[in-house]
Amino acid sequence: MSLTLGVDIGGTKVAGGVVDRDGTVLARLRRPTPQDDTPAIVRTIIEVIEELRKDNPVEAIGLSAAGFIDADASRVLFAPNVSWVDEPIRDDVTAAIELPVVVENDANAAAWGEARFGAGVGVSNLVCVAVGTGIGGGILLGGELYRGAFGVAAEFGHMRVVPDGRQCGCGNRGCWERYASGTALALEARTGATERPQDAARLLGLAGGDASQITGPMVTEAARDGDVVALAAFDAVGRWLGEGMADLSATLDPACYVVGGGVSEAGDLLLDPARRAYAAHLTGRKYRPLAEIRLAQLGNDAGLVGAADLARAALPSH
Amino acid sequence: MSLTLGVDIGGTKVAGGVVDRDGTVLARLRRPTPQDDTPAIVRTIIEVIEELRKDNPVEAIGLSAAGFIDADASRVLFAPNVSWVDEPIRDDVTAAIELPVVVENDANAAAWGEARFGAGVGVSNLVCVAVGTGIGGGILLGGELYRGAFGVAAEFGHMRVVPDGRQCGCGNRGCWERYASGTALALEARTGATERPQDAARLLGLAGGDASQITGPMVTEAARDGDVVALAAFDAVGRWLGEGMADLSATLDPACYVVGGGVSEAGDLLLDPARRAYAAHLTGRKYRPLAEIRLAQLGNDAGLVGAADLARAALPSH
Repeated sequence: MSLTLGVDIGGTKVAGGVVDRDGTVLARLRRPTPQDDTPAIVRTIIEVIEELRKDNPVEAIGLSAAGFIDADASRVLFAPNVSWVDEPIRDDVTAAIELPVVVENDANAAAWGEARFGAGVGVSNLVCVAVGTGIGGGILLGGELYRGAFGVAAEFGHMRVVPDGRQCGCGNRGCWERYASGTALALEARTGATERPQDAARLLGLAGGDASQITGPMVTEAARDGDVVALAAFDAVGRWLGEGMADLSATLDPACYVVGGGVSEAGDLLLDPARRAYAAHLTGRKYRPLAEIRLAQLGNDAGLVGAADLARAALPSH
Repeated sequence: MSLTLGVDIGGTKVAGGVVDRDGTVLARLRRPTPQDDTPAIVRTIIEVIEELRKDNPVEAIGLSAAGFIDADASRVLFAPNVSWVDEPIRDDVTAAIELPVVVENDANAAAWGEARFGAGVGVSNLVCVAVGTGIGGGILLGGELYRGAFGVAAEFGHMRVVPDGRQCGCGNRGCWERYASGTALALEARTGATERPQDAARLLGLAGGDASQITGPMVTEAARDGDVVALAAFDAVGRWLGEGMADLSATLDPACYVVGGGVSEAGDLLLDPARRAYAAHLTGRKYRPLAEIRLAQLGNDAGLVGAADLARAALPSH
């Protein structure tokens, strides 16, 4: 049985998994991501790998990392939520582990996972939109990950959708992810619950009566129970999501979108308004087919499964 | 000598040209585009081809058509500025001419022309932005035209850049081409000349003293002579152009942009503010290489030269 190991390196946790060639995760390990300490992050990654490979004879390692990865797939150039800049992570890990290592942007790795084993199976022109704290993106064209000329394609969470709009961690204003993300969902719900508490009884109940404590998962739970403000928050965020996908279709014209990330756990609460807005906003909509909008299937595993499979695909024996 | 024939079908004229394998145009013919009469447009295209092939033994025909082309490259699905809908143009022309015929969106054909013989030679990941009445787009990835899943990719003139913004011919509001085009240039200049006539003496002189008569070419001429309002119009349109290219880079990450179309004849008057805005607006700009922004080289010939070359590339003998 041929096994590879995927490691998903995020702002809060380092999650490793041993993956077989069907995309099944056979063993798992998680560690918190050390904060503000690059050598400690690298050590944590190596520990997770060493621990998992003890009982599992893996052939290669795939690292899924938040941030810009260079065109050689060896360095992290820039990661807003993890404290490293220009880190030669492939060489760091290869030196310690002595196995082939590939590095991929986390959203690209997740898109690959969904395309190989999840909602995107059989679709060759595919855009994955991971709706979480921000928006992560992955693009598959002709069945291959599209990385761009400099390795930093599919950062469409930072398309500007509102001139002089909400401030973004990237330094710009009005980025799509400020309007179509878990952060935006909580913001909409807090504002709504403050202005119309009578329509937000369930939501405020979950937040201990304090609108400022409302989180994305609370909005999902309250919306499922019919809370008016929570439903309005999903309508607003879903609309921005669908309109942004229509903008992407003007450029990329994919056959299908796969919507993942934490907010997508709300399912049709998010996708129904997104589909309506997509169909209403797409340019030339009367004269062209519409892309399908599907829910992701692999959940939190998409990144590590995708990274492990990319590591396998890079093996000479493959 | 192997020759093919390109025909560029626009809203006002049908322009044919006999092209050799180096992209040189050896003979030309133009006819006005019949208005509101699809059979007459098809007859005009056939007449242009028949006339040109009399003295030139062409092997194949490439048609460059404004509008959405279907994924089979045989039908025009939708063309805002030419009066046909769902027209099987490839079969219409093949039936009359009995030569292989390919059909390509005009901006894609122009992008191919620039990539093969113009400003994009040697660049494999390239985005062409044709700034004219609107914005035409073409995308080359890995040295090939990228057409999307349904054949209608690269319509990024209809990305929304301003929610509830200026009305667009496509039916939406706030499309990029409403802000970064010859139409926008004339609009900016008319407004400026009306509000600040003392800063628009040259521009108003060209327009016979009537701000409402200002056209794009007048703005270019007045800006070259230092007219303050005309220069401000280029700054505004160039800024929108550069910011939109930064948004495209967030998704596509090309190595290079080629800016063509009528407004690009103004050269650095347009490209200088566009380059500044691109560099200032690109997400992650401190941590990634910037794409080059180049001026197109083939002018009005790009579409017919590109179409003729695509017809050659589709020949079995090629």
